[in-house]
Amino acid sequence: MFRYKITIEYDGTPYVGWQIQDNGLSVQEVLSTALKNLTGEEFVPKGSGRTDAGVHALGQVAHIDLSKEWNLSKIRDGLNYHLRPAPIAITKAEVVDDEFDARFSAIRRHYRYVIVNRRARLTIDRAYAWQVPRPLNHELMNEAAQSFVGYHDFTTFRSTHCQAKSPLKTIDTVSVLREGEKVIIECSARSFMHNQVRSMVGSLAEVGMGKWPVSGIQFAIDAKDRAACGPVAPAHGLYFLKVEY
Amino acid sequence: MFRYKITIEYDGTPYVGWQIQDNGLSVQEVLSTALKNLTGEEFVPKGSGRTDAGVHALGQVAHIDLSKEWNLSKIRDGLNYHLRPAPIAITKAEVVDDEFDARFSAIRRHYRYVIVNRRARLTIDRAYAWQVPRPLNHELMNEAAQSFVGYHDFTTFRSTHCQAKSPLKTIDTVSVLREGEKVIIECSARSFMHNQVRSMVGSLAEVGMGKWPVSGIQFAIDAKDRAACGPVAPAHGLYFLKVEY
Repeated sequence: MFRYKITIEYDGTPYVGWQIQDNGLSVQEVLSTALKNLTGEEFVPKGSGRTDAGVHALGQVAHIDLSKEWNLSKIRDGLNYHLRPAPIAITKAEVVDDEFDARFSAIRRHYRYVIVNRRARLTIDRAYAWQVPRPLNHELMNEAAQSFVGYHDFTTFRSTHCQAKSPLKTIDTVSVLREGEKVIIECSARSFMHNQVRSMVGSLAEVGMGKWPVSGIQFAIDAKDRAACGPVAPAHGLYFLKVEY
Repeated sequence: MFRYKITIEYDGTPYVGWQIQDNGLSVQEVLSTALKNLTGEEFVPKGSGRTDAGVHALGQVAHIDLSKEWNLSKIRDGLNYHLRPAPIAITKAEVVDDEFDARFSAIRRHYRYVIVNRRARLTIDRAYAWQVPRPLNHELMNEAAQSFVGYHDFTTFRSTHCQAKSPLKTIDTVSVLREGEKVIIECSARSFMHNQVRSMVGSLAEVGMGKWPVSGIQFAIDAKDRAACGPVAPAHGLYFLKVEY
């Protein structure tokens, strides 16, 4: 058995998310089909983590097991050929040993969230960013975001459908910066819970709009109550950036 | 009569281009309809210039004439409301006097062309950039691009369908730079001819791939022959950035 690590970029718009589900087409299913068409082998790529419907990835990672040894550029280019015309691409293929597991070997995951802060509706970015018409104070958002850093009970900031056993997580970094009309939030942690980044972003936007004080984030963390969360930011502004191993 | 200048952003993907045509929906037609629905008045917005099918705009400009005086934010927000769900947005509305003409008052137009230089197919950017798999030397492209600057006969670099009387044009600036896997070409001039930027970009890509020497651009200009042009770069990598008045 030969194990390969693949790095995957995708447009989440047409998919129910990463994970194979009954209710529609997933990135994982499209990848499995391409893999079968390329190699003749049945193997469901194991991802580093799920992404929700509409969430994009610039650097999702999965591992695949093949019975024969493959040239790395054949895996990358061959999968890309068989993935056509799906908006999914393999940007890298690497050899890994069978100790490597895309999910369990990951030590840090990075997400980016893109807000376009303007009154006018979005055009080119309409499936790739969240439009927030009210002016956002990104400096206050960044200040408030630092409350997330560290080891906390994130009950307030995870979906009620989250299957993780414990709500305790450590956030390594969160930053909020502005580039013209864009407000960009980046966040890294060993792992995230279901809807966690979007819940954090939605709450930070409340701070940015002046609806919450800067201390509102700490207050919401301390509440340990899903009802204390701000509105969850929409999926289509979120990008799964990269995974560290 | 009250004249207003509007700045327009659009995703060119679903349109036959800026200009009203018989063969499909244009940005100009969608705007005219929204204007009529907002104001009750029939007026076809006069654009600063045409864009081809698939070409995007971040800062197209048009003027509109209305029989009554309008509040500027009402024009912007009202048009944006009536433009829904089209990927067209008004980013600015300004008062201008009736000497102002979006086309004839323009003194400089700016375009940007985005190439993604990598082997993997595009996903999120697939309708917003041109994928060039062969490595591009952007420094050679930038050097060659300087041959375009100045007053030249651009017969080689315009469509055979171009309706401009003279092929003589002055290019003010061209720059080619790299940002990671992106190669970005920006170009400014008082005016451009049909397919001119895409013809220039396609030829610069030949230089970048090493198929043409740096001197190939000057050679192609001197040929004054459409057949001497490189392959025309696809429409969906091109952005009409802004117009100066």
